[in-house]
Amino acid sequence: MTYQPPLREHLFLLRDVLAVDRYAELPAFAEAPLDVIEQILGEAGRYCSEVLAPLNGVGDRQGCAWRSDGAVTTPAGFKEAYRALVEGGWPALGAAPAWGGQGLPSVVGLAFSEMSSSANMAFSMYPGLTHGAYSAILHGGSEAQKALYLPALVSGRWGGTMNLTEPQCGTDLGLLRTKAVPAADGSYRISGQKIWISGGEHDLTENIVHLVLARIEGAPAGTRGISLFIVPKFLPDADGAPGARNAVACAGLEEKMGIHGNATCVMAYDEATGWLVGEENRGLALMFVMMNEARLGVGLQGLAQGEAAYQAAAAFARDRLQGRSLTGPKNAEGPADPILVHPDVRRMLLDARAVLEAGRAFLFWTALHGDLADHPDEAVRQKAKDYMGLMTPVLKAYLTDRGFAICSDAMQICGGAGFTEHLPVSQYLRDSRIALIYEGANGVQALDLVGRKLAADGGRAVMSFFAEIDAFVDAQAANETLTPFTEALAAAKARLQEGTLWLMQNGLANPDNAGAASTDYLHLFALTALSYMWALIAKAANARIAAGETDPFFANKLVAGRYFIERILPDADARLAKLTSGSATLMAYPAEAF
Amino acid sequence: MTYQPPLREHLFLLRDVLAVDRYAELPAFAEAPLDVIEQILGEAGRYCSEVLAPLNGVGDRQGCAWRSDGAVTTPAGFKEAYRALVEGGWPALGAAPAWGGQGLPSVVGLAFSEMSSSANMAFSMYPGLTHGAYSAILHGGSEAQKALYLPALVSGRWGGTMNLTEPQCGTDLGLLRTKAVPAADGSYRISGQKIWISGGEHDLTENIVHLVLARIEGAPAGTRGISLFIVPKFLPDADGAPGARNAVACAGLEEKMGIHGNATCVMAYDEATGWLVGEENRGLALMFVMMNEARLGVGLQGLAQGEAAYQAAAAFARDRLQGRSLTGPKNAEGPADPILVHPDVRRMLLDARAVLEAGRAFLFWTALHGDLADHPDEAVRQKAKDYMGLMTPVLKAYLTDRGFAICSDAMQICGGAGFTEHLPVSQYLRDSRIALIYEGANGVQALDLVGRKLAADGGRAVMSFFAEIDAFVDAQAANETLTPFTEALAAAKARLQEGTLWLMQNGLANPDNAGAASTDYLHLFALTALSYMWALIAKAANARIAAGETDPFFANKLVAGRYFIERILPDADARLAKLTSGSATLMAYPAEAF
Repeated sequence: MTYQPPLREHLFLLRDVLAVDRYAELPAFAEAPLDVIEQILGEAGRYCSEVLAPLNGVGDRQGCAWRSDGAVTTPAGFKEAYRALVEGGWPALGAAPAWGGQGLPSVVGLAFSEMSSSANMAFSMYPGLTHGAYSAILHGGSEAQKALYLPALVSGRWGGTMNLTEPQCGTDLGLLRTKAVPAADGSYRISGQKIWISGGEHDLTENIVHLVLARIEGAPAGTRGISLFIVPKFLPDADGAPGARNAVACAGLEEKMGIHGNATCVMAYDEATGWLVGEENRGLALMFVMMNEARLGVGLQGLAQGEAAYQAAAAFARDRLQGRSLTGPKNAEGPADPILVHPDVRRMLLDARAVLEAGRAFLFWTALHGDLADHPDEAVRQKAKDYMGLMTPVLKAYLTDRGFAICSDAMQICGGAGFTEHLPVSQYLRDSRIALIYEGANGVQALDLVGRKLAADGGRAVMSFFAEIDAFVDAQAANETLTPFTEALAAAKARLQEGTLWLMQNGLANPDNAGAASTDYLHLFALTALSYMWALIAKAANARIAAGETDPFFANKLVAGRYFIERILPDADARLAKLTSGSATLMAYPAEAF
Repeated sequence: MTYQPPLREHLFLLRDVLAVDRYAELPAFAEAPLDVIEQILGEAGRYCSEVLAPLNGVGDRQGCAWRSDGAVTTPAGFKEAYRALVEGGWPALGAAPAWGGQGLPSVVGLAFSEMSSSANMAFSMYPGLTHGAYSAILHGGSEAQKALYLPALVSGRWGGTMNLTEPQCGTDLGLLRTKAVPAADGSYRISGQKIWISGGEHDLTENIVHLVLARIEGAPAGTRGISLFIVPKFLPDADGAPGARNAVACAGLEEKMGIHGNATCVMAYDEATGWLVGEENRGLALMFVMMNEARLGVGLQGLAQGEAAYQAAAAFARDRLQGRSLTGPKNAEGPADPILVHPDVRRMLLDARAVLEAGRAFLFWTALHGDLADHPDEAVRQKAKDYMGLMTPVLKAYLTDRGFAICSDAMQICGGAGFTEHLPVSQYLRDSRIALIYEGANGVQALDLVGRKLAADGGRAVMSFFAEIDAFVDAQAANETLTPFTEALAAAKARLQEGTLWLMQNGLANPDNAGAASTDYLHLFALTALSYMWALIAKAANARIAAGETDPFFANKLVAGRYFIERILPDADARLAKLTSGSATLMAYPAEAF
């Protein structure tokens, strides 16, 4: 069974749940009324399912090949698919019109990214990283740098990368050693080794623009001495075309458990020419612009792999005849019933739907706040910025944790066949696993949430989230069809508030309490956010039903939402109990006894 | 870092927690006082860590090779390691002395199996399946069959396999088509295709004894017409030596996500000569003798992979310097602190320890009941048999679920390096995943528990488990050092009892309620059993401490036990809430909407 783009889910979210037509006054939405978005996503879905999805298994089996001269070849078909990507204008969807972009809302770009990641995660990382490089230069680059690099990145003619990690430093960038020596012409000579660089070298684009963190000679140690540089593979000539080869080379590829179609490179910089982006020693802040965007993208990958794996498992469960229903044959003429009759199989599938549907809503809802950063009302702009900061680590960690778990359940449904490479689920499971690690491991996200995002601006972001939920619950008090959802939401919010209070009281006194609570708190937060999303979805579905809609699509939303309340939300209590148990036991275990 | 056999854990369990010296009157234990067991396990640990562990990565990278003549080659070094296995007498540990076995207690065999599975799961499956074939023939074979096959299986000179699955039937064996036609000499001609046969063909032994489920011509359809046959690769000659080649061949190997060093074969039977084991049409019952033993072994694999992955992650966390402790530098002279200072890293490691230590206790405690099947007291024998039936599905599903989760957390601790094939954790994760599927998928275990094991003999097994816990809690009422553990245990048991009552009341009325509750019930059961194990472990550790023991090994048990109560046991509430939510929502979702 091939991947089916979830267009109907996307349109239901945009039209009914998020009601994006409210924002027609914003430039991005003015260009794209819902019928245009529908057309674009339909086309995008065809590209993803017809061009990218058939190459997913090829990429997994072939992987990328490295030659001793440093050249890297992508799997068969990737070049043609990339050409089609550029010709289709897909990399330009959400980019700024000033640089050749189509200026569409982020949520449209996100819907495309979801589909391309479901269809072929390894492939979709090439344009994904390019978009990150685009964002960093857009935010931090000089006008000349923007003019030189952005059009090529937006069109996809050039690729982009992020170069952070070195053998001795991943999470702790303060330890980085790559050095930058100023040259007479204002450029720098960059030297050092970077590892785990996705798309660091490949054969898809005529140039690759590396964004590299390095320490300028004499800069302070630690994170305060890190600067960001543009280091192109080929130095742009006077016309901006790729000219002389720069002294940067791929020294080898990593052997990995998954995403074999993406080249994970060791990069060697040997006095390569680079140009400073933004100010000296302020590179980390700029890289975080790129990182935050990338983190949302990684959360999306978790969702996307979960969706693809869910589809494969649901198809298998409908087709595979084995055993009989516990309540008597449902396919009496056949040799056995489809395994979908078994409650425990349905449990795994509905677990997936309940998380995927509300997780997608949460992601789109957050991305919409990204679009509201241009809103004329300052209060809206501020809240939008607050939410982007607060929700990003939650989305990154929760959706990748759950996405991987959904892939594992999908394999479980497919049984022995799922463990073989006949079915695609093994690849989904293997590919999805990296998303819990890169762009900041999920534990780092949890620490970012409790240590930074909660406390920022006196807790303004989380307070406005609580206030928004309270206002919603109050406003729907008379809406009886929604009562199960608003009650569950109010209870979830009360628990999250209790957890937040505990953190405020205990985390400052002993930071280890915050660290010990962080992962459980993040999951409690996500469960609350998903409760809110289910309430929004149920409200939208109820509105359609009340208007006489008889398509079961809408009634099914209410069933999946009830499933969430009955069978996923109970974890919130357990999360609260765990996080309030503190750090004493954790820290009492002697280091040498592990 | 190489795998370290957990000998100290094994001996603490056998000596302090299970106090096996109580059973010196049983033949198996009479032969093996604790000092002898200690010596044997020390030797076993050396074999596993020095011979098997170094071949684990080799097996993963090379896999097995199939030639078009049907021959299968195992990875480099496996033949030599297998020869050492046979020479060391390791396959004979727990086997009956009448057939060349050493007659040692099951728990000793289990400790060896854990170590060999941690060191090299793919390799350890070859002798593991052989032991299953031994058990089936021991229980169901004629005296002539026993004399012909058992000594060769016990010594490991011949290998054994289980042949159940066919393309159209895995869980639902009633659909099987492999047929058996009686021959004039009392043997049968077996024809059909079997798939996913572990160790179906290889180069390790001079013969392979296939135990094959097939339907005798004219037998009833469904599970009541299935018989069990011995089909040797080489027909034994008059001296019992491998003679003429039988008409069974390996038609190919499966490409799998893990356990590459184990040959997973498609087996073609083309009028192969076979001999009936036991009675006609009673094959399934015999196969279940083998299956139940295999299920305990699979639970053990989950534990073993979790242990190996834990060890690798703990070593990484001690060595990797990155960032600083939230409460100030702990390695001020170094460039950064080891990541073990972070509470969230400790959380993942203690999660592993809390499950592994009590999970191992639960497994050993259950296996000890296997040894008590020979006890002179009939009440002890009956309870032992009841417990083996009741606990087997719980151990199989819970330990494999958690073992895989521990492998995933171990990868998380190792970060990017964990996702590459530089470290062993990717292999542990990939290898461990099959254990949730084979020998009855975990959902099938859960259904076996709620649908069969709970109800058997009027619920006698679960009632005696409850009574045993109550008696323990009562007996320890005055033992104040144990209070946190007995209180947690009593509360867990009360929840399990509530869940059991709910199942009795709702599962009969509507079997879908039982199916819908099954997985959550199984986990609730396991959490209760582990609470009991932690109470036993804490009691044993406290006794040592009270006797003046100052080795922190014992005090650390109490810390890990508290961790279990604070951070794992809260899931029991969530499991109860989920299971009592019933099946209505699950079944309301239309099949075509998935």
